[in-house]
Order: sequence, then C-alpha cells, then structure tokens
Amino acid sequence: MQPLSLQKRIKWGDCDASGYLHLPRVFDYAMEIIDLWHWDILGTSWIRMKENSGLGMPTVRLEGDLSHPLECGQPVTLRLSIEKVGRASVDFSVEGLDDAGHRAFRVQVTGCLTDLGSKKSMPLPEEARRLISAYQAAGGECNI
Amino acid sequence: MQPLSLQKRIKWGDCDASGYLHLPRVFDYAMEIIDLWHWDILGTSWIRMKENSGLGMPTVRLEGDLSHPLECGQPVTLRLSIEKVGRASVDFSVEGLDDAGHRAFRVQVTGCLTDLGSKKSMPLPEEARRLISAYQAAGGECNI
Amino acid sequence: MQPLSLQKRIKWGDCDASGYLHLPRVFDYAMEIIDLWHWDILGTSWIRMKENSGLGMPTVRLEGDLSHPLECGQPVTLRLSIEKVGRASVDFSVEGLDDAGHRAFRVQVTGCLTDLGSKKSMPLPEEARRLISAYQAAGGECNI
Amino acid sequence: MQPLSLQKRIKWGDCDASGYLHLPRVFDYAMEIIDLWHWDILGTSWIRMKENSGLGMPTVRLEGDLSHPLECGQPVTLRLSIEKVGRASVDFSVEGLDDAGHRAFRVQVTGCLTDLGSKKSMPLPEEARRLISAYQAAGGECNI
Repeated sequence: MQPLSLQKRIKWGDCDASGYLHLPRVFDYAMEIIDLWHWDILGTSWIRMKENSGLGMPTVRLEGDLSHPLECGQPVTLRLSIEKVGRASVDFSVEGLDDAGHRAFRVQVTGCLTDLGSKKSMPLPEEARRLISAYQAAGGECNI
Repeated sequence: MQPLSLQKRIKWGDCDASGYLHLPRVFDYAMEIIDLWHWDILGTSWIRMKENSGLGMPTVRLEGDLSHPLECGQPVTLRLSIEKVGRASVDFSVEGLDDAGHRAFRVQVTGCLTDLGSKKSMPLPEEARRLISAYQAAGGECNI
Repeated sequence: MQPLSLQKRIKWGDCDASGYLHLPRVFDYAMEIIDLWHWDILGTSWIRMKENSGLGMPTVRLEGDLSHPLECGQPVTLRLSIEKVGRASVDFSVEGLDDAGHRAFRVQVTGCLTDLGSKKSMPLPEEARRLISAYQAAGGECNI
Repeated sequence: MQPLSLQKRIKWGDCDASGYLHLPRVFDYAMEIIDLWHWDILGTSWIRMKENSGLGMPTVRLEGDLSHPLECGQPVTLRLSIEKVGRASVDFSVEGLDDAGHRAFRVQVTGCLTDLGSKKSMPLPEEARRLISAYQAAGGECNI
C-alpha cells in the first residue's frame, strides 16, 4: 500500500485573472483525491454510502494555505495523508507539490460520518478504522 | 408580470487568465436565473419538485454564444425568456446585456420534466403551462 | 457606513448529491462579498489594481467552518467583517446566517497585497488603512 | 498519433442534488481535454500563447447535448475530435462515453484565435493547420 497521489496540471479555467490558481479551486483538487481515497482505500464512495446505507460524510471544516502561487499550466502532485481519526470524524491533509517537489499548498479537510436521516454523527465502523490505520502505517500519515 | 431579470457583476473567480469571463461560467449565470424563475413564476423549485413529487427537470441541452467578451468586474443584466414549450420540455433563453444594453451572450437551456424513479419524461402539468403562457404574454418571450 | 451584507439563496448547482451546499462552494460566496467590499469600501477592485498599478491581492489562506448544513434553495445572508490588518495583509471574516439568524458557516480569508512583477508583498497604502478603520468603526468588525 | 482521450470519474462535487452530473460541469470536462490537446498536439498552451505572443483562443460558442444522465462516481471516457477548421477558428467536439462505450454526452466548442491587443481575429498559422490535419488524419475527426 502506498500513500495516494494524483498528478494534475493547473487548469486554465481554475485560474483567475491574475494568471494563477484561484485559491478556492484548491479545495476541488483536494475533494477529488479524497473522493478517490474512499474508492481505493475504503472500497466505497460517498454516493454508495448514501444510497446503500443512508450515510454521509459531510465536510465540516476546510482549511487551505498557499506557500507559493501556482501558475496556469503548471504540474502539481497531490498527496493525501490522514492526520487524525476521531470517533466519527477523519482529518485529511492534502499537499500540493510543484515539479521541484516543493510544497505549494496544503489543504486540511474534516469529514464527519453522519446518518442522513437523523442528522446525527455516527461512530466510524471498525473496518474503516482498520483500513485507515493500514493506510497510515503505509506512510499515509502527515509528516508535517 | 415582468420578464425576469437579474443584475450581476462578472466575478473575479469566474474569469480565466485572459481577464475575461471564462465562457463555461455563463451557464452558471443562466442556471441561477432559471432556478429563480422556478421560484418566482412557477412557485416551486427543483429541490421541492424532487422532495415533494419525485420529479426532476434535468438539463438535456445547453448552448451558449458569445457576441463580445465580458471583462472582470463588468456589470451584466440577465434576462430570461421562454422560447418553446414541448410536451415535457421547456426551452429557456437567457441573454446577458452589458451596461450599454448590447447583448454580450445568449444561452439556451432545455430542461425536461422527468420522473426520477422511472427516468421517463412526464407531460408538463396544465398549471405550469398556464403560468408559462402568462409569463410569455407578459413579455417573457424570446424576441430574437 | 454599514457592515456589508449580501442576500443569497443556496443554488442548486452549488449543492452536491447530498442535497446540501457542497462546502468548497462557500468560498465562492465569500470571494463574492469580498470582491464587492473592494468596490464599495475601498473604491477599487482586483482587476483595476492589476491593470492600473500592477498590484494583486492574492488569497494566501482560507478557512471555513460549517455549523449546520445549508439545504438547496435556503436563503442565507452573508456578512463581512475585517478581523485583522497586518503590514500587507487583511484578514476578512464572512459569516453565513440562515433565515433564523443563526450562523451556518464562517469563512476566513487572508489576502496579501503583492507587487505582481516582483512577487513581493507591499505595505497597505495609508488611504486603504483609513477606509478599513472606518469600516471597522462602523461595525464591520468581527465580534466572535 | 492517436485521437486524444481522457479517463474521468464523475466527481461528487460536479453532481447536483439530483445525484447526477450537473450539466454545466460537462464544459469543464471538455475544456480540460481541449487544454490538454493544445499541449500534446499543438505543443503550446493558452497561457504560453498569451505570454509569448499576446494571442488568445477565446471560446465563442459552446453546445452540449446529454443523451443519458451520468451518475456520481461513474467512469467516463472523453474523446476529442476536430470538426471544422476555419480561417481563425477551430471547432472541437468532445464526446463522453460511459463504461459500456455508449455516448452519454457530446460537447462542441468553438475557439477563435485572437490578438489580445487589438481584439481582432487572426488567421491560424500554417504550422497549426498542419498539426491539426495530421491529428484529423490519425482518426481525430468527428465521425458523427
């Protein structure tokens, strides 16, 4: 098992009139790799969780820091780590590295397992905890 | 009853590195006024249709033409007309006028009333047809 | 002078398959009122700053917390406060209030005045400081 | 040379409250593969054209048709063809194929080579015409 990473190129349509990445778009990049992580590591997805079990993983907190601006067209590697696991919540950390390997941004996303009917948070299932621990053990842990 | 219009200013985040509106964003502007039209003219909304009646109005066709580019920060007036009403479908036309009253873009959107369970199209209810006709009679018709 | 506020309705296209606001979209709402603030309070805009003076105000930090989920179609009032003013940076705080006046989310945005040529941060001009202070004095200060 | 294609999975954040792809997002998918085509086939990009030559390729027309709705999480293959080449314009056609190989949507995008200073259209350079012809000969032609 390897920490999940994703190659992107800063899209023309994700830049604003400055010619650089419009910072709010960085969360779309982060959501894409977190979505992928659900498929690849947990073997499920937000849509399946909803349809099969009436569960959701709504984002309750987002945080993003830019170290240096990313130009339109520039390649960037996303890398996903798990920073913290709570009773019902998972803290994801997504770094964006430029082609020299320097960190251009860091995004933190907190999702909270929720019963969509009662709107109450739900404890993470044991199987999910086990898979998350294995992911962390394989290096998918935040080393910052 | 007046044809529906909406004042906007081209947002910084909707422009691309050219400094002008990123054309795909024009459909977000169009969807916003069409959504508003459902509230104001039909007295319903896509989310209520879904939750109360299991109905949807998925967009099946989009078309957008740019007459002249819109700069970041420029004011634009959206104006909504109904171009055609079919058995199950409605063709909306949204014009974007600059501050001199010249048309900068025109978007056409076709929505199709659909039963979300069976995925089959559904005839528009008589009440909706009546409200749409009244809207057209009041000037909300495409004069192009 | 009044703290700036903006009425919005959670757009269909801003919600994800959960039927609630897709949290990353909250930053688009925040950027919209911050952009407006530049026009209304500072009497300038990001695009004018770029074109007239080669200056930018890139976002270097974003933070968003959700208190309770916002449903598709729900009205929300945005309210902008200035939280902190540094040498070159301004910390904006945008709250989203539901129709009962309860805070549904809070977003913090840090922009940094930057010379687009040298990529170096620039001290905020005295005139901007004066206008910001007046805005804060008029109540546009974060009371959280 | 092979017609350009791109594997995608319909992103959670690109779906609306219906659980299906929010149709306007289809243009973001199309712009992504068209951007890629500029890099891979023309050996340039919109940002380089702007910075090196003061040229742009603004989108002047967009058209999208949905044959059947795409569910959140569903894989989709994008395939880019060149439909028509004018004096200054290129008509791109992007098809989205589901995992059974059926066409779910088709998008047409017209870009027009433009001098960003004078805002006038510019004839496509011979070298670009040659590369486009080779791409068409290799199968990147619209067979619809």
